[in-house]
Amino acid sequence: MKAKYWMMYRKAGLMCSIANEEKIMDESFVTLIFKKDTLTLIDQRILPTEVSYVDCKTYEEVEFAIRDMIVRGAPAIGAAAAYGVYLAALQCPDEAEFKKACEFLSLARPTAVNLGWAINRMLATYEHSKTQPRDALLGSLLSEADAIREEDIRTNKQMSRIGSAVVPNNATILTHCNTGALATAGWGTALGVIKTAFYDKKNIFFVYADETRPRFQGARLTAWELMEAKIPSKLIPDSAAATLIRDGKIDLVILGGDRVASNGDVANKLGTFALSVICKAYGVPFYSVVPISTIDFTIPDGSAIPIEEREAEEVTHVQGVQVAPSGMDVFNPAFDVTPHQNLTGIITEKGIIYPPFKENIERLRRGETL
Amino acid sequence: MKAKYWMMYRKAGLMCSIANEEKIMDESFVTLIFKKDTLTLIDQRILPTEVSYVDCKTYEEVEFAIRDMIVRGAPAIGAAAAYGVYLAALQCPDEAEFKKACEFLSLARPTAVNLGWAINRMLATYEHSKTQPRDALLGSLLSEADAIREEDIRTNKQMSRIGSAVVPNNATILTHCNTGALATAGWGTALGVIKTAFYDKKNIFFVYADETRPRFQGARLTAWELMEAKIPSKLIPDSAAATLIRDGKIDLVILGGDRVASNGDVANKLGTFALSVICKAYGVPFYSVVPISTIDFTIPDGSAIPIEEREAEEVTHVQGVQVAPSGMDVFNPAFDVTPHQNLTGIITEKGIIYPPFKENIERLRRGETL
Repeated sequence: MKAKYWMMYRKAGLMCSIANEEKIMDESFVTLIFKKDTLTLIDQRILPTEVSYVDCKTYEEVEFAIRDMIVRGAPAIGAAAAYGVYLAALQCPDEAEFKKACEFLSLARPTAVNLGWAINRMLATYEHSKTQPRDALLGSLLSEADAIREEDIRTNKQMSRIGSAVVPNNATILTHCNTGALATAGWGTALGVIKTAFYDKKNIFFVYADETRPRFQGARLTAWELMEAKIPSKLIPDSAAATLIRDGKIDLVILGGDRVASNGDVANKLGTFALSVICKAYGVPFYSVVPISTIDFTIPDGSAIPIEEREAEEVTHVQGVQVAPSGMDVFNPAFDVTPHQNLTGIITEKGIIYPPFKENIERLRRGETL
Repeated sequence: MKAKYWMMYRKAGLMCSIANEEKIMDESFVTLIFKKDTLTLIDQRILPTEVSYVDCKTYEEVEFAIRDMIVRGAPAIGAAAAYGVYLAALQCPDEAEFKKACEFLSLARPTAVNLGWAINRMLATYEHSKTQPRDALLGSLLSEADAIREEDIRTNKQMSRIGSAVVPNNATILTHCNTGALATAGWGTALGVIKTAFYDKKNIFFVYADETRPRFQGARLTAWELMEAKIPSKLIPDSAAATLIRDGKIDLVILGGDRVASNGDVANKLGTFALSVICKAYGVPFYSVVPISTIDFTIPDGSAIPIEEREAEEVTHVQGVQVAPSGMDVFNPAFDVTPHQNLTGIITEKGIIYPPFKENIERLRRGETL
């Protein structure tokens, strides 16, 4: 499916299903939609030079789409996986087989907690509804998946409104990886904050986007979203951020998170940790923007977060072009862990978590207000 | 000229011209040689997937080769420029024209001081010999260019022997960009230290090579040289270094330098500064390896070093493959400045400069021993 069809899809799918909400989609594209037992995903491996869509009709295809990063970004992975569970239920009337399928889905990528979070939420619905007739069970599962997707968009808008408050007027912001509509069911987390601040007429002076090696999510996806949103911006090699930060050219850094530990340590895209050290050394505010579904209350700190190592070819080749000698060994961790001591705050849909992070995250877990 | 001819070139050119020296070339390639009024350069823009050579028969071609990074690395630029001056003298019998040509050459790239250093040395030879017959003048210039190239190789071996002393046994070393034979007339600076330590049976446990965006000198050139030298090594995205450093997996960082100010601030390939901040935060030794020709005694500190900004396409495209949306603005500084406070030492052919850098560099300038 090519870009020219997005309008049709948008009208037929996404916009209808959230018709009762405020008009919250400003993007000219759709990250994921589900219609007629098909999950359609924008292919994030080849953006922005090609805008095309991939259809997933089985849970195996959803698993592949997550693993191969057709869809990426913690919240988007969660929403895609929710539909994957629904497809698994369609394919597997047998409970044991269904649960094996869910287990398979949950192993697609290890770091983002939203994957397991969404699957667990779908499994809870399954447990609750499995004694019902099959049609009712399937209906409940589809409703739950729709709810996960729609809640994600609402949550992003909520976080963006809250986060917009920390953006000063005339701010120059640095961001890393992609945390926009493409990383979520819609709108975005950290890039959502930037867009909301921009549309709030905060006069965002400038956004610097790290290109984000090795997958170039910043170059390919964030740059594209920034241009679509007409926000003044420049793309930089990841290593250029340090000098900008030292020279006082960055007012604040806003980026996402793939899993937050209960002490506030944040696993996020490779490169985040280095940025946090530079920001701490030069006194620049540093925020992670995550929905509460990204907080893993079960782990004490970042050392318990599994860090995915991806294949060498992501580093040795760029879209098929070889940039390293054949046979060279590679170390390619997809994420790194930023210690909570380096964070100014964690922006969520329930408010901003400030230090002491452990205590405040515990309050959040108990359902108290921040 | 293709790789298969290197042996012929090596035998005919380089090895003969340094016949009286120790056998110091262990590389299976030649970075630059000069024969029959032609400067032949290995084309560093396309290594390692293609090993081919480019012939420069005019100073304009040498200027282009430096500007377009057919040849790169501060010492290699210096040596290439020296031959460029000789070609300028061949082309321009008129003194004013010749000096204009030298000025043109000196503007090819702004940051590496070796470019101006080599040209000034050639100009001094010109001044000294210009009253001689033209043949004698040209002979003097060619001898001086040969001397610059040969001294560079000797200097690199000297630095490598000195630097090898700071490499502990079983060391795991991180390096950035390319500082090997390709960055110099031969052998290398920082990578020279690593190779010498390795051949000294220091049991280098491992070398991590930063890929070095945007031009991938680490992925394309250093990885190739490490494989040629059979040194156990892995290539990493630049952003992966920070976690390795924090987790105690790096014993020391050794890298090059393009210009050292008289207080010890070092301009080097983009990414060096960020690494230095991480190393300082986690107590990892951090060395820059430079010949004394890279020290600019005329400038007080790093803020006086001009930082080259290169074209957007280096960031938006990888060997012709587009990785960012068309029209996206880019900030692409080729270098950054590491403050002397972040350096453990600067390894030169006259010894290792330790803090206080300003005082010790002044001693070096006065010809005193370190």
